[in-house]
Amino acid sequence: MENQIGFHVPLKVSYEQAVTAATHALKAEGFGVLTRIDIQATFKEKLGADFRPYTILGACNPPLSHRALSADPEVGLMLPCNVTVESDDAGSSIVRIANPDAMLTIGPLGANPVLVDVAKQARARLERVAQSLRSL
Amino acid sequence: MENQIGFHVPLKVSYEQAVTAATHALKAEGFGVLTRIDIQATFKEKLGADFRPYTILGACNPPLSHRALSADPEVGLMLPCNVTVESDDAGSSIVRIANPDAMLTIGPLGANPVLVDVAKQARARLERVAQSLRSL
Repeated sequence: MENQIGFHVPLKVSYEQAVTAATHALKAEGFGVLTRIDIQATFKEKLGADFRPYTILGACNPPLSHRALSADPEVGLMLPCNVTVESDDAGSSIVRIANPDAMLTIGPLGANPVLVDVAKQARARLERVAQSLRSL
Repeated sequence: MENQIGFHVPLKVSYEQAVTAATHALKAEGFGVLTRIDIQATFKEKLGADFRPYTILGACNPPLSHRALSADPEVGLMLPCNVTVESDDAGSSIVRIANPDAMLTIGPLGANPVLVDVAKQARARLERVAQSLRSL
């Protein structure tokens, strides 16, 4: 579990429903969605290439992000916290949630006790997000 | 160098000029800026807290991203490639560029030879971005 870069959550709802559900579940744990990248549309526009429906949401918990960036501005390279939503072959969907324990303590960041604590708290919240999505 | 999570580029230009210069330098190496997070404005709005000017740019090279996501959809947890720009105390600025060697090969992703190759190519491009900014 500690080495996972993210939590994998298969959902039995459509891609569109999964995007909405993930956004709501994140909000319930204090994470706003600051950015959305529609990968399918981006690849179509830039490359003319087909790709399955796939969105990258950039989620941010402002108090935790403020603590982290105040402790070390380099942590901005790991923010916001990514949540990906994609369509699977069966018309259902997969949500992946980045594991803050892997992201916020990567390399030299792991030596900073504030970042270790922020990662722990963010991880607990995002595990609850994953759990609430699994119960859909 | 291999363990760096990012390349640190101090610039003798203002924050606003640094944001523009970073965007242009990324474009010259095939990276479009897909997302922009104004951290200062976000913390002011969400927390009422003051923070120095600080922006997180989400940069994406479409051909490399397409190769990476086709090889392993979990790599979306590490995309886009972050570039941060902040104001320093002296009215100059600091640009940090995520090191793809650290990001795209984190944990189990590092076992995928396609991702290792994409990381190598992205790194070479972003090192040229850093170099062109250092020559400003």
